[in-house]
Amino acid sequence: MTGIKTHGEKRLVIVSGRAHPQLALDIAAELDTTVVPTDARTFANGELYARYDESVRGCDAFVIQSHTAPINQWLMEQLIMVDALKRASAKRITVVSPFYPYGRQDKKGRGREPISARLIADLYAAAGADRIMSVDLHAAQIQGFFDGPVDHLFAMPVLMEHIRETVPKENLTVVSPDMGRVRVADIWSDKLGVPLAIIHKRRDPLVPNQVSVHEIVGDVRGQVCLIVDDLIDTGRTIAKAAAALKANGAVGVIVAATHAVFSPPAVELLNSPEIDQVIVTDTLPLPAEKQFEKLTILPIAPLIARAIHEVFDDGSVTSMFDGAA
Amino acid sequence: MTGIKTHGEKRLVIVSGRAHPQLALDIAAELDTTVVPTDARTFANGELYARYDESVRGCDAFVIQSHTAPINQWLMEQLIMVDALKRASAKRITVVSPFYPYGRQDKKGRGREPISARLIADLYAAAGADRIMSVDLHAAQIQGFFDGPVDHLFAMPVLMEHIRETVPKENLTVVSPDMGRVRVADIWSDKLGVPLAIIHKRRDPLVPNQVSVHEIVGDVRGQVCLIVDDLIDTGRTIAKAAAALKANGAVGVIVAATHAVFSPPAVELLNSPEIDQVIVTDTLPLPAEKQFEKLTILPIAPLIARAIHEVFDDGSVTSMFDGAA
Amino acid sequence: MTGIKTHGEKRLVIVSGRAHPQLALDIAAELDTTVVPTDARTFANGELYARYDESVRGCDAFVIQSHTAPINQWLMEQLIMVDALKRASAKRITVVSPFYPYGRQDKKGRGREPISARLIADLYAAAGADRIMSVDLHAAQIQGFFDGPVDHLFAMPVLMEHIRETVPKENLTVVSPDMGRVRVADIWSDKLGVPLAIIHKRRDPLVPNQVSVHEIVGDVRGQVCLIVDDLIDTGRTIAKAAAALKANGAVGVIVAATHAVFSPPAVELLNSPEIDQVIVTDTLPLPAEKQFEKLTILPIAPLIARAIHEVFDDGSVTSMFDGAA
Amino acid sequence: MTGIKTHGEKRLVIVSGRAHPQLALDIAAELDTTVVPTDARTFANGELYARYDESVRGCDAFVIQSHTAPINQWLMEQLIMVDALKRASAKRITVVSPFYPYGRQDKKGRGREPISARLIADLYAAAGADRIMSVDLHAAQIQGFFDGPVDHLFAMPVLMEHIRETVPKENLTVVSPDMGRVRVADIWSDKLGVPLAIIHKRRDPLVPNQVSVHEIVGDVRGQVCLIVDDLIDTGRTIAKAAAALKANGAVGVIVAATHAVFSPPAVELLNSPEIDQVIVTDTLPLPAEKQFEKLTILPIAPLIARAIHEVFDDGSVTSMFDGAA
Amino acid sequence: MTGIKTHGEKRLVIVSGRAHPQLALDIAAELDTTVVPTDARTFANGELYARYDESVRGCDAFVIQSHTAPINQWLMEQLIMVDALKRASAKRITVVSPFYPYGRQDKKGRGREPISARLIADLYAAAGADRIMSVDLHAAQIQGFFDGPVDHLFAMPVLMEHIRETVPKENLTVVSPDMGRVRVADIWSDKLGVPLAIIHKRRDPLVPNQVSVHEIVGDVRGQVCLIVDDLIDTGRTIAKAAAALKANGAVGVIVAATHAVFSPPAVELLNSPEIDQVIVTDTLPLPAEKQFEKLTILPIAPLIARAIHEVFDDGSVTSMFDGAA
Amino acid sequence: MTGIKTHGEKRLVIVSGRAHPQLALDIAAELDTTVVPTDARTFANGELYARYDESVRGCDAFVIQSHTAPINQWLMEQLIMVDALKRASAKRITVVSPFYPYGRQDKKGRGREPISARLIADLYAAAGADRIMSVDLHAAQIQGFFDGPVDHLFAMPVLMEHIRETVPKENLTVVSPDMGRVRVADIWSDKLGVPLAIIHKRRDPLVPNQVSVHEIVGDVRGQVCLIVDDLIDTGRTIAKAAAALKANGAVGVIVAATHAVFSPPAVELLNSPEIDQVIVTDTLPLPAEKQFEKLTILPIAPLIARAIHEVFDDGSVTSMFDGAA
Repeated sequence: MTGIKTHGEKRLVIVSGRAHPQLALDIAAELDTTVVPTDARTFANGELYARYDESVRGCDAFVIQSHTAPINQWLMEQLIMVDALKRASAKRITVVSPFYPYGRQDKKGRGREPISARLIADLYAAAGADRIMSVDLHAAQIQGFFDGPVDHLFAMPVLMEHIRETVPKENLTVVSPDMGRVRVADIWSDKLGVPLAIIHKRRDPLVPNQVSVHEIVGDVRGQVCLIVDDLIDTGRTIAKAAAALKANGAVGVIVAATHAVFSPPAVELLNSPEIDQVIVTDTLPLPAEKQFEKLTILPIAPLIARAIHEVFDDGSVTSMFDGAA
Repeated sequence: MTGIKTHGEKRLVIVSGRAHPQLALDIAAELDTTVVPTDARTFANGELYARYDESVRGCDAFVIQSHTAPINQWLMEQLIMVDALKRASAKRITVVSPFYPYGRQDKKGRGREPISARLIADLYAAAGADRIMSVDLHAAQIQGFFDGPVDHLFAMPVLMEHIRETVPKENLTVVSPDMGRVRVADIWSDKLGVPLAIIHKRRDPLVPNQVSVHEIVGDVRGQVCLIVDDLIDTGRTIAKAAAALKANGAVGVIVAATHAVFSPPAVELLNSPEIDQVIVTDTLPLPAEKQFEKLTILPIAPLIARAIHEVFDDGSVTSMFDGAA
Repeated sequence: MTGIKTHGEKRLVIVSGRAHPQLALDIAAELDTTVVPTDARTFANGELYARYDESVRGCDAFVIQSHTAPINQWLMEQLIMVDALKRASAKRITVVSPFYPYGRQDKKGRGREPISARLIADLYAAAGADRIMSVDLHAAQIQGFFDGPVDHLFAMPVLMEHIRETVPKENLTVVSPDMGRVRVADIWSDKLGVPLAIIHKRRDPLVPNQVSVHEIVGDVRGQVCLIVDDLIDTGRTIAKAAAALKANGAVGVIVAATHAVFSPPAVELLNSPEIDQVIVTDTLPLPAEKQFEKLTILPIAPLIARAIHEVFDDGSVTSMFDGAA
Repeated sequence: MTGIKTHGEKRLVIVSGRAHPQLALDIAAELDTTVVPTDARTFANGELYARYDESVRGCDAFVIQSHTAPINQWLMEQLIMVDALKRASAKRITVVSPFYPYGRQDKKGRGREPISARLIADLYAAAGADRIMSVDLHAAQIQGFFDGPVDHLFAMPVLMEHIRETVPKENLTVVSPDMGRVRVADIWSDKLGVPLAIIHKRRDPLVPNQVSVHEIVGDVRGQVCLIVDDLIDTGRTIAKAAAALKANGAVGVIVAATHAVFSPPAVELLNSPEIDQVIVTDTLPLPAEKQFEKLTILPIAPLIARAIHEVFDDGSVTSMFDGAA
Repeated sequence: MTGIKTHGEKRLVIVSGRAHPQLALDIAAELDTTVVPTDARTFANGELYARYDESVRGCDAFVIQSHTAPINQWLMEQLIMVDALKRASAKRITVVSPFYPYGRQDKKGRGREPISARLIADLYAAAGADRIMSVDLHAAQIQGFFDGPVDHLFAMPVLMEHIRETVPKENLTVVSPDMGRVRVADIWSDKLGVPLAIIHKRRDPLVPNQVSVHEIVGDVRGQVCLIVDDLIDTGRTIAKAAAALKANGAVGVIVAATHAVFSPPAVELLNSPEIDQVIVTDTLPLPAEKQFEKLTILPIAPLIARAIHEVFDDGSVTSMFDGAA
Repeated sequence: MTGIKTHGEKRLVIVSGRAHPQLALDIAAELDTTVVPTDARTFANGELYARYDESVRGCDAFVIQSHTAPINQWLMEQLIMVDALKRASAKRITVVSPFYPYGRQDKKGRGREPISARLIADLYAAAGADRIMSVDLHAAQIQGFFDGPVDHLFAMPVLMEHIRETVPKENLTVVSPDMGRVRVADIWSDKLGVPLAIIHKRRDPLVPNQVSVHEIVGDVRGQVCLIVDDLIDTGRTIAKAAAALKANGAVGVIVAATHAVFSPPAVELLNSPEIDQVIVTDTLPLPAEKQFEKLTILPIAPLIARAIHEVFDDGSVTSMFDGAA
């Protein structure tokens, strides 16, 4: 037959935006490789630019970006990097957004609202992304916003291993800070073999972040309470939950969350005496001014690196989480 | 300027599948019009066929189908009807699916699962639907599965008006049968001005419909409990909830739900002495064998008809629900 | 250069719907592999579910389904399986539908009809299928309904080999039961080296399956007539053709068709004395109640398995049919 | 409410390529309007250009082109005209291609062939066409190649009216020159109330236009034979059919066809003594050198103009053909 | 015929992002209407939100945003507003971006670069925009990046009218600051009836904004030089051009540009003695700190408002510019 | 794990249209392979046909066509060949169009014009092309017209090497025939280390090819002028430029251009005494009647072949041009 035959080879590359370079370095190090050298710049009027310094032709590219403030800028940088990969003949492009941007805007709470989490998926697709990888989506339905594979990773094994090693189980109670989080808290309580309590909190749909009522379901008297959540933004919800738990007799409050958004005044609120410990991962960068003594930051890079390797190698991401992903 | 000018006219038409013809007749009657005469048939091997007996060119068409069993057949009939409208030059096609099919499969609970609710949205789009109208989606995020307008209607005003007229408020308590329903039950409790109780029920993710634990949050002793839910399928959840409520001292149990799926053994379970009244709408057909004395069926046609009229007339569907849709 | 390199590997997997599990087992056995273990279920209200029990990441997946009654259910199951493969990162998805559903609705016979065969192609694409494989499409133009490769297989070699081995050629005549089938019958007559006769049958376009006139073109007196067709649905056409042939002096009637739809009353009609033998393949399941003494069922699995192997191995499907596919 | 309201108006415009300007003039005249003045040019290297001299913003535009030789140039001109309309904010664009280009390449006769008729539909869509209007498609399935409305017109009423007025019915027989045309010939024979004959002609799939065998089914002795076909290309098929009919005792041969492609040596062949009359429409231009004494050219403009008006006015094209379109 | 008929009405609405609210107010005022009241917000972590306070169903919506710093944020806000309009059933959505973002990244200057101006067009389309309106695109080819109508407006009439009224023509010379701008400068020189000079400036492709050589083509001695450009970013190019012109004997330097990006140190540079006057439009907001005595800001709102009205009313935008748009 | 595993292999194939078969043969020879044998034909009415004589399943196919007159026919042939590859399961399809058709129609110069260069990109995509390869695009922005990788090659190395070997540098001056070409001429002048001159030519936008003014910027007296351009069409621009250069004292004029379109009267004009030498590549075929003594034709095949090899082998095309592509 006519033509030239050769044995195919595939090549994984890690590229990274500028929002959280350490995370990409850590992931690359876990994979025993390096990040593709990239010339990324911001022009005088705020327009961004990125160019890869070496060929990415035919690559299986993973575009790591962390969606911290200024979040829209970092999103745009990631989209530009995807466009450049597409036009440079990358074979497959996976957007790695450990903290999925706009994940909380996952539905129309009222008429004439956007569904920004769906828009984000559409923007990724428009730029040329074939796949998405993210950690602890605010709502699992976001997977359905993308017309393609979404590797949904869970930070729970990372956080739980730390809890198991550092916190005695005797008087521990898992607390869901919200009705929407009960399913996850249930799993924590099952896996740890400790009781579950729930905080029932009503939000005013017209005023975001304004929490009105806090009821505690379950007995927390004398317990060390482990509040588990996907993210901590301003910390108001967590602070009020901690206060309510202490007021109801809890002897300790530990907060474990995946995404440390830490918008002001999160640091002050989390630093209050009612909270004894805060455990997060580094899906988002935590500069010195967002760190404090009670805070433990666990590295997310090993988890993401392993998932990237499974994806590249046609292995199984699902098997990393006992079938759950 | 060259050409022919004329004043535009627009024409609304109602077309209907064969799953629940009465619903379409009722909607058309509310709108003071009739359903487009259609030749719909099933061939010997089960393949379906539909042809409109009059022109639908340039129309604003609403394709009503009710997704009762055999649900896949009625879905396919609706898709075929949309295809026929598209090819017959309808101007705009709105799929009216009061009970959104596969709405409960809205995410990947485990790896290698489909997201069938998203697939449904994709199938509607592939057939040629421009818009979707539905009632009480199982998860509001389903709106984000479609790349276009979704008119999400709420049956709550219909059900609540009936409750207000027939049930005394004195010892009434709204009960959420599930953590996932608390947000809606909250609104019921607010609007009715009565207390809220919650049933905390864990499902085994591997065995659908198998409920393991039932905890009641809130006091139901001496109360008439109004369980509100989006749908009743086999009735098992509701029956166990009712039993738990009665066991905890409730003096009455009323169930209000939008979608009466009523798969066996729903009728037997709902007919149990622990349930005093069941109130549903007719988004799904309820043949004689699915009806029983305690059952009240409220017509959904007025709500849908009004929404269709607002859509056709560039009015506001949101305003029908105080800004919520 | 940055990154990780590895030699690519490719993996073929066979997955199967529940309509005709034996067919998939046979195909897998021909390929010396097994079907991917799958958890497929029907929920209480008829909604379907499927989940693969092992990783399909990066696979070249073939989704086998047989479109027997209830045809819309099996179609939907196939679409759901495709969606699950797409979201589980399968590399390439080929829908294997030996009997293409709705293949007879391949054009608008009248205004305001659907073109359901095109709709089917659109639904496959919407779910995520990259390719289609089918056997003896009712109209070859259906290939053009899909924007991608369609592997169109022919059962003729299978059927003809059986005829050659079991039927003497001396007084054999190939009969086209229809004007639309003459092209295929021509090839049969050429390849077998026997004469051709044609039945000219007019259908009333308004009343499907109602045959009005039967003229026989060609001489069948004293001949054994081999009627060749793509499918047998209710059997009415074939039965009338056989009667007409016998009435015109034929001494034997053998029917060879690819797809044994066998909707009632096919079995009774085919079992009539005017038909001496019926030869079909098992593209559709034939449960015991659809079988009868005169019926010979030839296995289609070897043909499909070989085609799948050619597709997987970048070989040639065309060469299986002397350039015709 | 905010904003500016006004009553909508709609405007139909006719634009035309340069292949057959008279046809567009005739259509516009039938509609009592004029063709949009257009600057259409061919640059030195054969690249084409078109610009509208007046605004087409918001228009319902019909782009008329006749696909005569050089067919690829006229196709490209039509695509360019559609692109210009799209970018100039036309509201709806209907491609009017009375003779659908590449209509005979509607399937893969062999492996590794294109399906050019589908490609044409894709090119129209890519350029921005919303709808297609055509006359007597070579295969009705071509309608399914386009994901949108196709107005399929039939020239039969035009041709038949002329036959009725000019040919006595007494010894008239309708003849299908081909198995593929029997369905249409059937309708002619029904409508005229005269007998039907069929010519069975086998083509060698590898050598186009090479007809090998001609059998006549039905009795044509002493009859005037009316051969009906969709198109006449080189005329070879028709000439051989006419010869065969005369050889079998026919006393007259009239040929009626919609599309007069008339590639050489069509004019010489049709001018042979065995053919008494040729009746065609002017879907394709017929310059003086393609005309001859026996040829009657019927205008297609009234039919197309009426269909355009029905489309513009949301009337019914189907009703023009007793439900068949 | 079945159904409800009514006369269509169309409604224009102006919605606006928060980057330059005065511009939208001015445009609305020119149109004698008001901007749709909108609840636009920035959440704690920088995520944006927008909701329309009144119905936009069926509207012809124009989404005005000015792409000043932080440019990525305002772009994202505009995309979110488009998504909300799409989901709220707006009939047609036109993005009005007077200064097209990322317009200077219109091609790959080197391998592995993005084409961000194309990406922007793709993002608009993904969000749901049907049309784009912009003023003085950096490269006219950007129109071709969008698969739909782009209304390309020219500020030249606005700027030129001001020049004509305030600057004597006697010793005026139009200067193109760049080879890429000669075509536009030519038109200025033609329309004003004054000579043209050109500055030939080479950029180092690897170091943006670093100008190396300045040659002046044409005689500027004793002339008042009118430098015309599409935008002024840091002002470095203009400042060097002005210095070169003065050094070559020019007696005055007037700068006229459409888009006043004015990134630092533009204000200082433009305020230098070598520049006598700067004339711009307000396509971008100019807060007090970006204004200075020599600066004249001309309102762009009348031009945009007129174009919006022509678009809404199916008039002609081309006619606003003598056929050029 | 279930399934069949094998090591992937990839296969490059060269297919070619009929416009310039020698070019494809040369490219294949450079790659040490042959062109896929193809049955390409023109039917009587000008419709085209192509079929590959051997399997292209799974191939990395490069479809070479040269867009000479009749340009629309050769474009259509290329589209048909792409469609056939897509339907024959080619894995990846790269359109190789050394002279990009309609490249000069890259923007709307006036309202209601097409952007034909964008349309071409859309047609390639619609047919199934995944990638485009071209040489010296008329405007680099055309890369942004395609939603995928465009390999933009430069003939400059080929032309410059010839100049270096044959022309003494002493009194050589590079001349840009046009403002739009200055950027390229700059690079020539830099790389050759010789001065630059520019011809400022105004075109009347309403009358293509009609040049009105010729100013020479820079000193050409006593110089040998090297006019560099991307293409020579009718040669009028070049002839006038040469005349102007000689009139201004140039002692020699050499013309170097990539694409030898050579529409009449190019050969006569280029053969004038004012032009001493013409150097082009064979991106377009140059039959004997387009050749003349002063003309040197350099082979483009080595450049294209190397680029194809880099693409196939996941190497770097950018590195072929020092990072510029």
